[in-house]
Amino acid sequence: MIDYRSDNTGRAAPEILEALLRANDGTALGYGGDDWTGELQRRFGELFETAVRVFPVATGTAANALSLAALSPPWGLVYCSNLAHINVSEVNAAGFFGGGIKLVPVAGSHGRIHADAFAATLAAIMPGQSHRGQPAAINLTQPSDLGAVYRLDEVRAIADLAKSKGLKIHMDGARFGNAVARLGCTPAELTWRSGIDILSFGATKNGGALCDAIVVFTPELADSLAIQLRRAGQVWSKMRFASAQLLAYIADGLWLRLAEASNATAARIAAEISGIDTVTLLAPVDANLLFLEMPAATLDGLERDGFQFYRRSRTVGRFVCRFDTTEVEADALIAALRRHATAVRRAAE
Amino acid sequence: MIDYRSDNTGRAAPEILEALLRANDGTALGYGGDDWTGELQRRFGELFETAVRVFPVATGTAANALSLAALSPPWGLVYCSNLAHINVSEVNAAGFFGGGIKLVPVAGSHGRIHADAFAATLAAIMPGQSHRGQPAAINLTQPSDLGAVYRLDEVRAIADLAKSKGLKIHMDGARFGNAVARLGCTPAELTWRSGIDILSFGATKNGGALCDAIVVFTPELADSLAIQLRRAGQVWSKMRFASAQLLAYIADGLWLRLAEASNATAARIAAEISGIDTVTLLAPVDANLLFLEMPAATLDGLERDGFQFYRRSRTVGRFVCRFDTTEVEADALIAALRRHATAVRRAAE
Amino acid sequence: MIDYRSDNTGRAAPEILEALLRANDGTALGYGGDDWTGELQRRFGELFETAVRVFPVATGTAANALSLAALSPPWGLVYCSNLAHINVSEVNAAGFFGGGIKLVPVAGSHGRIHADAFAATLAAIMPGQSHRGQPAAINLTQPSDLGAVYRLDEVRAIADLAKSKGLKIHMDGARFGNAVARLGCTPAELTWRSGIDILSFGATKNGGALCDAIVVFTPELADSLAIQLRRAGQVWSKMRFASAQLLAYIADGLWLRLAEASNATAARIAAEISGIDTVTLLAPVDANLLFLEMPAATLDGLERDGFQFYRRSRTVGRFVCRFDTTEVEADALIAALRRHATAVRRAAE
Amino acid sequence: MIDYRSDNTGRAAPEILEALLRANDGTALGYGGDDWTGELQRRFGELFETAVRVFPVATGTAANALSLAALSPPWGLVYCSNLAHINVSEVNAAGFFGGGIKLVPVAGSHGRIHADAFAATLAAIMPGQSHRGQPAAINLTQPSDLGAVYRLDEVRAIADLAKSKGLKIHMDGARFGNAVARLGCTPAELTWRSGIDILSFGATKNGGALCDAIVVFTPELADSLAIQLRRAGQVWSKMRFASAQLLAYIADGLWLRLAEASNATAARIAAEISGIDTVTLLAPVDANLLFLEMPAATLDGLERDGFQFYRRSRTVGRFVCRFDTTEVEADALIAALRRHATAVRRAAE
Repeated sequence: MIDYRSDNTGRAAPEILEALLRANDGTALGYGGDDWTGELQRRFGELFETAVRVFPVATGTAANALSLAALSPPWGLVYCSNLAHINVSEVNAAGFFGGGIKLVPVAGSHGRIHADAFAATLAAIMPGQSHRGQPAAINLTQPSDLGAVYRLDEVRAIADLAKSKGLKIHMDGARFGNAVARLGCTPAELTWRSGIDILSFGATKNGGALCDAIVVFTPELADSLAIQLRRAGQVWSKMRFASAQLLAYIADGLWLRLAEASNATAARIAAEISGIDTVTLLAPVDANLLFLEMPAATLDGLERDGFQFYRRSRTVGRFVCRFDTTEVEADALIAALRRHATAVRRAAE
Repeated sequence: MIDYRSDNTGRAAPEILEALLRANDGTALGYGGDDWTGELQRRFGELFETAVRVFPVATGTAANALSLAALSPPWGLVYCSNLAHINVSEVNAAGFFGGGIKLVPVAGSHGRIHADAFAATLAAIMPGQSHRGQPAAINLTQPSDLGAVYRLDEVRAIADLAKSKGLKIHMDGARFGNAVARLGCTPAELTWRSGIDILSFGATKNGGALCDAIVVFTPELADSLAIQLRRAGQVWSKMRFASAQLLAYIADGLWLRLAEASNATAARIAAEISGIDTVTLLAPVDANLLFLEMPAATLDGLERDGFQFYRRSRTVGRFVCRFDTTEVEADALIAALRRHATAVRRAAE
Repeated sequence: MIDYRSDNTGRAAPEILEALLRANDGTALGYGGDDWTGELQRRFGELFETAVRVFPVATGTAANALSLAALSPPWGLVYCSNLAHINVSEVNAAGFFGGGIKLVPVAGSHGRIHADAFAATLAAIMPGQSHRGQPAAINLTQPSDLGAVYRLDEVRAIADLAKSKGLKIHMDGARFGNAVARLGCTPAELTWRSGIDILSFGATKNGGALCDAIVVFTPELADSLAIQLRRAGQVWSKMRFASAQLLAYIADGLWLRLAEASNATAARIAAEISGIDTVTLLAPVDANLLFLEMPAATLDGLERDGFQFYRRSRTVGRFVCRFDTTEVEADALIAALRRHATAVRRAAE
Repeated sequence: MIDYRSDNTGRAAPEILEALLRANDGTALGYGGDDWTGELQRRFGELFETAVRVFPVATGTAANALSLAALSPPWGLVYCSNLAHINVSEVNAAGFFGGGIKLVPVAGSHGRIHADAFAATLAAIMPGQSHRGQPAAINLTQPSDLGAVYRLDEVRAIADLAKSKGLKIHMDGARFGNAVARLGCTPAELTWRSGIDILSFGATKNGGALCDAIVVFTPELADSLAIQLRRAGQVWSKMRFASAQLLAYIADGLWLRLAEASNATAARIAAEISGIDTVTLLAPVDANLLFLEMPAATLDGLERDGFQFYRRSRTVGRFVCRFDTTEVEADALIAALRRHATAVRRAAE
């Protein structure tokens, strides 16, 4: 069995668990009053080149929903891609935590919003319409749920539009490391310097274990969020074990090395299969996700071979590379795709 | 510095973190589809001598609030002790997750509800009062927030009253191990055999690290709760790292040994200071908590000595024993209390 | 000024206000314990040919949102037309009252859902997807927000699909009278005999004054809804003044006469302007709404003439006929449309 | 039968219904865009001697819950009397509309909060306690649910305490007219000049029919509240019929005359029965409510005589005077109380 199901089926990076173990020393004040969590604030401040507030949370769903609840009143509209994780895969957690927030899809491609479509959406809003939800925020999934990455200028164009209407901007960075690694920019450039107010900073999909984080760039949003997190059951009493994971994750560029690894594996597979005429990439392979369309017989064949992946339809499969997907595993997938494609072509002849 | 602040300032039991590390092997289906979480269901079934559904969650607040939301409609009343953790220390998370659930304090002592007071409360409910909240559930904190433990017959008396009115029963077992260790009963006796529908099963305060659990004894409540947990951001994608902790926690009776240790330390301190006439226990020391009243000068002295504890008022301090509170630390507290008490007595003479 | 803005800009039918006045006699138990509200249950039972529970409420938004909250758990998905009032015009009240319910648009035409599109939507649901919202209910706006009416067989086809998947069915009958008048069916046929669980029974837009109603056909939903209405601030203490309005509304077929009047006016306008080649009907005129596309200059001309209507875009206007729109007012609109159309044609020549 | 059950069992003042009828003339923009609602803003501005925003709502529960939701974040604590209507009789609507707001009772007497007790409550709040609800607002029921009226200096003392801690102040004026009539002060003095931010302005219990109102004195709270009201289903499309009622209610001092009438009747009964030694007033009769303790046999006798009232226990009855309670009805109650008391005394001899 070779696992391409998800980046959350994988292991944690050993450095992260070792840091968790090292944190098991002495006593420490609960609920984030410990030294590790204090250090976390400083290190993230350095990483993002500005003072930030960092809140470790258990899951990406918590990070996203609580971020949006901090950025929108209960009657707010939050714009997002139709394919955004918050819209498709989180049981409407944003609506729940936000007291009735409504998500409004905006057109685009490959899970990204197009600035033009967003501009058109904003232009259609008429003032004084108290019977409509009130425009409040926009969510960018970076990379998108199809593995496409917004360029810096694309993020800025959308953020500028949002700011011009007083909207707040949330980035769902469940795979933030993959985006930064791909773009070669700084974390600051991709976030607050581009107008992001709050970032869901993912670690779990990129070698983390039990926590992601919310990073707040707009200071006045942080104090209320801290209370909301407490009542949301997202503040560990032994927070040091979460903060230590995140400290290790960003120490010495580990997070970027992990993301580069999974990005590279995906890119290699994409390159190698580009010549197979029956296999089509449905989205740019900017990060570690491949959405492949191919004959059902080819997908059936891969399943028989023992490859694990999510089949989105009879002819579409999602293949996810992890930081620890090996070259051998990548070679195996490439070879199997070629083999089945050849068999399909022969059968068609 | 000797730390008596809380059982969440302490370390995790090494066995638990080692199990977490061992779980970092191979790939595993996300969101609880892994083998560890499957095994968790079986082991908790054995522990509780009945089929249960176990849901690892990040915090006790999440466990309590989501349990109550599963036991009460949004317009429900949940009875609890005035001092209950859900009433005092969770930012009304139950009201939030429950869509407006209201907590109603019932009289008792030492953080426990008295069956007589609960019977009187129930007797005062008049039928057909749609302008009142609707009685829905009762919460028992076991041990209480003052460290007192309900006896089995006390739990059953309250549960019988509740059941007779159609109410559901939740046990907040943030320190469940301490209660079981104290009573010498089985986990089954203290829960479903006594009428409990859902248990918040605490681990963090007793040597755990990053997760507690919800244990559901009433099967029809579990499927909805599973969905609610997902949207509450309480379902880790790499759930194996949580389940592995809980498996280690209950393996070979570890959880009871840890609880017996902290209980024993607290009991020893209580016994040794019983002869000091200026120091008074404010509640029975059934578990690992000591609430001590003493002259302000004595508490001031302890602080100067480097003891850490929560001062509830000028003359009341809370001292919490952890599984790894040492004999030396206990001796130090006993000796310091004697020393300061003597000084206070002399000053008064 | 001739007002075609909305059916809520109009007067109340005198019979309804006179009934309200007659109810001002003697004392009466509050919160629906009065004789008028008792009588209301019986009369609606006769009207719908089955036992029902009727709850007067202040507004259609309250009727819709509270009905949906009764039909769906907080994590439920409610299917509706993209143009449905609940989706477009109620500030996501359903999401608020429902604790995070999510509305999911289904394709169709003229504000109606197509059974085929709904079948496709249901077919795409995969079991066991706890990360998605859970399909719970479907909302039919009858007539639609564009004034199109579902035929009985269309309602039944959709309801059958819904029932086959365990979904509940809500009908938003803000203009229910117009639909019944149009179809010539019985209220029973259009509701519970076609599978409807709860009906938002509109009166305000059809000659009512200050109340609409929720009609519950599925008895087990009613008791909880009664409590929810109370906490939603929708239960008048002097309920008799609301019930008396609704009693008058349905007495002696008043409600159908009022709806027939506005339907007939709209139909007459539609017929008379069908020959004007620059004016296009955007939806069937099944009820009392006309959506007309025409040159901007024509709409500008109507505005200069003193006609009031909502302009949905430069070239689209919504014209609503009320029960008391006069023949003179209809003639005036027809004549003005002809006059401006002729002018536009000449200008183009 | 003579009805002392409640002030909501009574009739509406004819002037109010006549005004409602007169509003049935011509067309008018919906949702408060009509002339009556515009006039309402001006007239209330005059009445309160300052610019206000007035929102008609269907019920007092809606007024209270939505006011509190406007004054408190979801994690807020709202202080109130243990006997406050919001705490006892509104199915925790404040918790629901407020997204989990928690009500915290403060000690006092006769349904009023004592400033000293409130000061002690505030003094016990420790800063930085993110695990507690956050103090947000205080609710004063004026008159209280036992019919006692806060004096102006009492309101101000409590409001000053609240303001000093940054809390907002809500007055539940379900019987506001009775309080103003009793105190002989201006509406301004009792509200914003004493520090009130939002007033629930009751009309229904004092001769109104189908609406109360929210009066906002703190302007920055009004815009959000307007949207929240819309999604709460509290904004009538034919608002003119609500606004017309409220305009009539305050025109020419009608509301004060109605309140003076019910106050005077209650005061006369209280005075006349003060000599009956077996009948005890449980609270000051400052408004139109009498809470009377007497032998069960006396209450039984009153019931047999055909008096209607709420029996709070075997020996306590609540008697409510309405604006249209007649002198004959008052005489009858006084005489019956004397007669039964004499019989009880003789039986005891």
